[in-house]
Amino acid sequence: MPQALKIAVPKGSLYADSVAALGRAGLDIQGLSDPGRQLRVCSGDVEFYIVRPSDVPVFVSYGGVDCAICGRDSLEEAALDVIELVDLGFGACRFVVAEPEAANRPADADYQRLGVMRIATKYPRITARYFDQQGVQVDIVKLHGNIELAPLSGLAERIVDITATGTTLRENRLRIVSEVMASTARFVGNIASVRTDPRIRELAQRLGEHK
Amino acid sequence: MPQALKIAVPKGSLYADSVAALGRAGLDIQGLSDPGRQLRVCSGDVEFYIVRPSDVPVFVSYGGVDCAICGRDSLEEAALDVIELVDLGFGACRFVVAEPEAANRPADADYQRLGVMRIATKYPRITARYFDQQGVQVDIVKLHGNIELAPLSGLAERIVDITATGTTLRENRLRIVSEVMASTARFVGNIASVRTDPRIRELAQRLGEHK
Repeated sequence: MPQALKIAVPKGSLYADSVAALGRAGLDIQGLSDPGRQLRVCSGDVEFYIVRPSDVPVFVSYGGVDCAICGRDSLEEAALDVIELVDLGFGACRFVVAEPEAANRPADADYQRLGVMRIATKYPRITARYFDQQGVQVDIVKLHGNIELAPLSGLAERIVDITATGTTLRENRLRIVSEVMASTARFVGNIASVRTDPRIRELAQRLGEHK
Repeated sequence: MPQALKIAVPKGSLYADSVAALGRAGLDIQGLSDPGRQLRVCSGDVEFYIVRPSDVPVFVSYGGVDCAICGRDSLEEAALDVIELVDLGFGACRFVVAEPEAANRPADADYQRLGVMRIATKYPRITARYFDQQGVQVDIVKLHGNIELAPLSGLAERIVDITATGTTLRENRLRIVSEVMASTARFVGNIASVRTDPRIRELAQRLGEHK
């Protein structure tokens, strides 16, 4: 009997679509529909690990799992070695720069004369890359959650965050200043596992065929 | 009328005790008892911000708030400039090194011959400092949550995590190998705010008197 294939599934907003996609690809996903507090679900020769989105790239690249479903946002921010196999299409969202609606602010270029703009984000790497490309100097403050509190409290002038429907931005009276990048869910594999275990490319093919 | 005093209160396990302590110190905490989705609560000349524990040191040191209640764990990990004013005593927990109960592992010293031990943790700075002090070389894998999945999946041999009652460790069949440090909740202030706003030291004194 072969070793169990270990698959990480992201908690949170991508979870339901990820489980559905794995089901359409022929895996037994019964144990995933209501796992409760259980974070490891065994099903035949597959072991599912239910993992925080931002931790998925870590589990894949360090070999804690063989493959996973993961948002492009988490992949880009982690910048770890994994093989991207399929763009699954769901989980579409955008990275945006946003600021308070009430703000009467100078243009980006004018900030250079006025001092350095402070940006709060959960994604310091993506944020730094974006403003580097724009040639705008910024001071990045890394937060773990509730980024909308940063402009509210005066911690930062702007934020870089993910938005799907824009509801959180509207609720917090933030308006989009510019777009950084778009993201969808991807199927990714550990480099060594993809080379040695044919089940991963087979699963990738079925996931691609049944999008 | 003076500017509002901005106070950060940590979400999660320290929240209830923090609110109670601020109430005993004479602040109007009515709006904090059931804030719902609201993360800013205004009460007279005080503004409360309900913030993720790991983000509290960021808000204090960058001046998003004037003062805050924060666990020593988050303070040590953030290593940012804030002034610690009172040890509030509640929220006691310990940082421990843990491994699977089933593990039949060599002593720390023997790992040096066998290769580098991998440690998963939410607290890479505290973990690095601890193993440096022990003179043990380790490979630290930073995760954002559910650290107990790391030894379960084979991502890491051991973890460094916080435990209050030990329940999560027991549920995941992990045993404590050694203790790293102890933590309690602290009242802390922004450096400039403590210098310029006497209300912070007054609040510190009342918090200390009514522990």
